[in-house]
Amino acid sequence: MRAIGIYKQASVDQADSFKEEQVDKPKAEGNDVLVQVKAVSVNPVDTKQRKLKEDDGKFRILGFDAAGIIEEVGEDVQGFQPGDEVYYAGSVARQGSNSEFQLVDHKVIAKKPASLSFAEAAALPLTALTAWEAMFEKMHIPLDADANKDKTILLINAAGGVGSIASQFAQLYGLNVVGTASREETTTWAKQHGTERVINHHEALHPQLERLGIDSVDYVFCMHQLDKAWDDIIEVVKPEGVICAITGPVEDIKLTDMTSKSLTLVWEYMFTRTLHQTDSRYKQGEILAKLAELVDEGRVRTTKSEELEGLTVENLQEAHKRLEEGSMIGKLVITV
Amino acid sequence: MRAIGIYKQASVDQADSFKEEQVDKPKAEGNDVLVQVKAVSVNPVDTKQRKLKEDDGKFRILGFDAAGIIEEVGEDVQGFQPGDEVYYAGSVARQGSNSEFQLVDHKVIAKKPASLSFAEAAALPLTALTAWEAMFEKMHIPLDADANKDKTILLINAAGGVGSIASQFAQLYGLNVVGTASREETTTWAKQHGTERVINHHEALHPQLERLGIDSVDYVFCMHQLDKAWDDIIEVVKPEGVICAITGPVEDIKLTDMTSKSLTLVWEYMFTRTLHQTDSRYKQGEILAKLAELVDEGRVRTTKSEELEGLTVENLQEAHKRLEEGSMIGKLVITV
Repeated sequence: MRAIGIYKQASVDQADSFKEEQVDKPKAEGNDVLVQVKAVSVNPVDTKQRKLKEDDGKFRILGFDAAGIIEEVGEDVQGFQPGDEVYYAGSVARQGSNSEFQLVDHKVIAKKPASLSFAEAAALPLTALTAWEAMFEKMHIPLDADANKDKTILLINAAGGVGSIASQFAQLYGLNVVGTASREETTTWAKQHGTERVINHHEALHPQLERLGIDSVDYVFCMHQLDKAWDDIIEVVKPEGVICAITGPVEDIKLTDMTSKSLTLVWEYMFTRTLHQTDSRYKQGEILAKLAELVDEGRVRTTKSEELEGLTVENLQEAHKRLEEGSMIGKLVITV
Repeated sequence: MRAIGIYKQASVDQADSFKEEQVDKPKAEGNDVLVQVKAVSVNPVDTKQRKLKEDDGKFRILGFDAAGIIEEVGEDVQGFQPGDEVYYAGSVARQGSNSEFQLVDHKVIAKKPASLSFAEAAALPLTALTAWEAMFEKMHIPLDADANKDKTILLINAAGGVGSIASQFAQLYGLNVVGTASREETTTWAKQHGTERVINHHEALHPQLERLGIDSVDYVFCMHQLDKAWDDIIEVVKPEGVICAITGPVEDIKLTDMTSKSLTLVWEYMFTRTLHQTDSRYKQGEILAKLAELVDEGRVRTTKSEELEGLTVENLQEAHKRLEEGSMIGKLVITV
């Protein structure tokens, strides 16, 4: 089968940063299903994994967000059969989705939303799992709009991949949503995806919140440069508030800031469950199944912002370049 | 009325570190009750507040743990009347308990356990509120022994004031409890107060846990020198685990350690609610009422380890000295 991967770390501009190879088509055993990949999307984890690649001569296939059709199931698989259309993020500990076929643990997959194309579905898994785990498991936000109606969440970088699905979940479950963006197009995108009120993360946040009649917020979900946002976060978060981060840098974070207000700092990394093979990883399948319902009911929409046709070296280079520029809005998808 | 307090920072050995004064007996108004103090206990917050005292000529009364009899109620007080025997921690933003009478917000008090003396009751509020808020609110441990039966909590400094009540709560609500102590008397005390298995915090924790058949723990409640314990904590905590701290130092904590396992770091400071006058402060009254029930049912016992008779300068100096030596077991109480 055809796959695109890397042999070593390389700047994305180098001609040989990605290679196309013919590799053996794997066989589904145990808990795995073999999926014919129809669409993949890209995430910051792809560029991070590219930069972490050891120069060990091994061919590493990236890509950790996909939708496709099950070709074959392992002997321990329950609830799925060949022909099922599924979507998933998978595991960074295994070969990724930039390939014609991919093995994935059936516990972390779900049937894709019937109302979405493969490309629209591939935009969702990694970011939706991140947002859901962060908000409803780790931050303990109740899945109950009534309980949340007097609570406010601040989304830092509301127009990014995670931001544009987190904001939809926040709105759906009754929170008051304020998000940050800085450009006209990101502001518009954020408003279209559940962020009622947008403020600018290049200016001090507290005065902007005050102008909206908000003195402080219950939850802060920081999806971009925690260290730059930290002082603003500490200023605006309520006593006993909860801060969730999915990305550093963390070196300059002053934990003493957390003490007087009894704050909670939550770290969310979607691949923790597959990386450490926790028993709880089946929850990722459940979250994706719930998300498919919400999408098919018209209550959550895809965050796909752009589509490139064809799983090629050029398209992957282009996608990684956009990620590294840091100006991504929503999700970029590549169809296979 | 008679009160003992400080005018300025002073080493506890200085003869004038505490002064006894006659001050006006205050009057209960609004949400306050006036309590005739019968017993107080001491906590690390007393020595911290002593060291923070500004040299502004004002008389500062310390003491943030007490039991006594209501003398008078403010016009907005509900649920309490003169003659009620109550216990409470109060607020570090107000004058403390080292006094014949004290004003306290009725929202943060409860009727004391009927089965305990004033001295036995005064040992409990601050540490029990800290342990309860930390475990059942901030760490989100369910109040359900069945749900906790496969979960393990590690209590760092299990024989201290907070440790000896946290361990009782942990055992009562079905957690497997492992605690740390280092001396024979603290080990014995910890075992008598709910810590089934005791390991030594002066040795590496993971090998000691392994010898108990425990590879990793779900919760870590660190009640002593977070920075010294941090590397051990990171090694033994499960992916998606929760760490709660009530004391630093935090300067050397490496937050990068939290990322791969998606850990949560919770800060608990019992005075956050009264200091910031949060709406949630009424929960402290509810927790103390629940605790009184548990004590009167014989399911939780006082953590009083020692009693000094008489609220005198000498006894307060002695108590502060013991706190600063860091060798306290359970709680030291002074009767008024």
